[in-house]
Amino acid sequence: MTFEKWMRESLDRVETALEHFLPGTDIAPAKLHDAMRYAALGGGKRVRPLLCHAAGELTGASAHAVETASAALEMIHVYSLVHDDMPAMDDDALRRGKPTVHVQYDEATALLVGDALQSQAFIALTTAGNGLNDAQQAALVRELALASGSIGMAGGQAIDLESVGRKLSRPELETMHRKKTGALLRASVRMGALAGATPDAAALKALDDYSAAVGLAFQVVDDILDVIADSATLGKTAGKDAKDDKPTYVSIIGLDASRELAAQLSRDAHAALEPFGARAQRLAELADLVVNRVH
Amino acid sequence: MTFEKWMRESLDRVETALEHFLPGTDIAPAKLHDAMRYAALGGGKRVRPLLCHAAGELTGASAHAVETASAALEMIHVYSLVHDDMPAMDDDALRRGKPTVHVQYDEATALLVGDALQSQAFIALTTAGNGLNDAQQAALVRELALASGSIGMAGGQAIDLESVGRKLSRPELETMHRKKTGALLRASVRMGALAGATPDAAALKALDDYSAAVGLAFQVVDDILDVIADSATLGKTAGKDAKDDKPTYVSIIGLDASRELAAQLSRDAHAALEPFGARAQRLAELADLVVNRVH
Repeated sequence: MTFEKWMRESLDRVETALEHFLPGTDIAPAKLHDAMRYAALGGGKRVRPLLCHAAGELTGASAHAVETASAALEMIHVYSLVHDDMPAMDDDALRRGKPTVHVQYDEATALLVGDALQSQAFIALTTAGNGLNDAQQAALVRELALASGSIGMAGGQAIDLESVGRKLSRPELETMHRKKTGALLRASVRMGALAGATPDAAALKALDDYSAAVGLAFQVVDDILDVIADSATLGKTAGKDAKDDKPTYVSIIGLDASRELAAQLSRDAHAALEPFGARAQRLAELADLVVNRVH
Repeated sequence: MTFEKWMRESLDRVETALEHFLPGTDIAPAKLHDAMRYAALGGGKRVRPLLCHAAGELTGASAHAVETASAALEMIHVYSLVHDDMPAMDDDALRRGKPTVHVQYDEATALLVGDALQSQAFIALTTAGNGLNDAQQAALVRELALASGSIGMAGGQAIDLESVGRKLSRPELETMHRKKTGALLRASVRMGALAGATPDAAALKALDDYSAAVGLAFQVVDDILDVIADSATLGKTAGKDAKDDKPTYVSIIGLDASRELAAQLSRDAHAALEPFGARAQRLAELADLVVNRVH
């Protein structure tokens, strides 16, 4: 199967899984469920679900188990976007080419949409018949909660907030990104792998090395795109980092060095996958996608 | 052991468990962890942990398992208070006798504190060596996530928001409270019970009946206290429901009928516990506490 066809099929499966795990608007409260679906369905690059699908192929995870894990990951990601866009945080009006949730609905609804999407992710992981046995359900909840919480994504956002208008060193910037986006990307790969035959410690270590490189590359490319792309292509407000005086790779090491760093991280990601051989084909292709993307 | 001594010991154990499961301020990001501890430690009635402890005694749950479950429950409850107090929601300045998190810190921190406390609850439930086996971890996550999410607590808050300034019927008011506070109180009892020897369907049904009565009684008494108590006793702003034009039992059926309703619900709670005999002593005492409390 070509990578393009694998991508399209995987994206379709993610959308179907999200449809399945999000409460319908026929269930009360309808407005909240409508807003949750507005935020989560029909948009986004779905990088985390794709990483999860690719890692699941490595350990022979069932389609059903991987779909459950990837839906949970995307719900956590979307909740973080909804809260991050709120006036108290980044105050952004555009996301995935649509008005943000607090603009389309209201602030209180955006707050509850994020809160409920986080809960819904853990509901999905522990729903009977979701393809995961008890031990896998518990393990995947642990991975996802740790990646989401104060030593993961939420902690990275707290560090991000404190860094606005202040000059970060490159190690400080890396620490922030390792938590803010890196933790959930790492969990995406680990959860996909753990949804199949439990990988040994060496395999998990290799996958973590891969994730660390891809996670950082993702952020470096994000910073590059914020400078060189336009809002229509990005689906969110371009040039916002500089306007908000946020520290970025481009602001700290410059555009050319940022491009070279992204290329090096791509090589690191591929090197980490060597022990897996051809079984890691999709993960390797996703590393290329992350580095070469234009939005 | 007297009820008072049992209460004091249980409250000490809850505080110790929260101390244990909340990241320390020596771990980055320090400010976020400080704010999480400010919100969760050293205050509150701890109704949910107490219900969890009492239900755990019924099924022979280990002290360790019950402490894990009760800490997770309280973290979810506290996250909901932190978000509920924010300007986009109730905009309240006082909670548990202290400035609310967004007042003491800032709005963005309050948002992240709530988000991270929710994650931390699921971390606690799935941490190795927490007294729960894999099946119990998965079951307790399921109970807590369902009670927290869009068909539980967050859904109840959404309905609450939509009801401000509008005349609710008594059935509508009950639906709102069953979700907003009832779902988590019910989960408190179920999680305590499930942390021990798995109860049969009839026992769970009896416990749900108990929780439904106690949950509604809790809300009716809350509405009564909002009218008759002062802010110093309550530890939060008194008279706020009337000022905000929120529908309450007192506004719909009056003060005397509200008092009679609370007494009837207390009788219902005791009736539901009959099959358990003396093993349900603490649950029976807690039903009395909920109805007779003065704050």
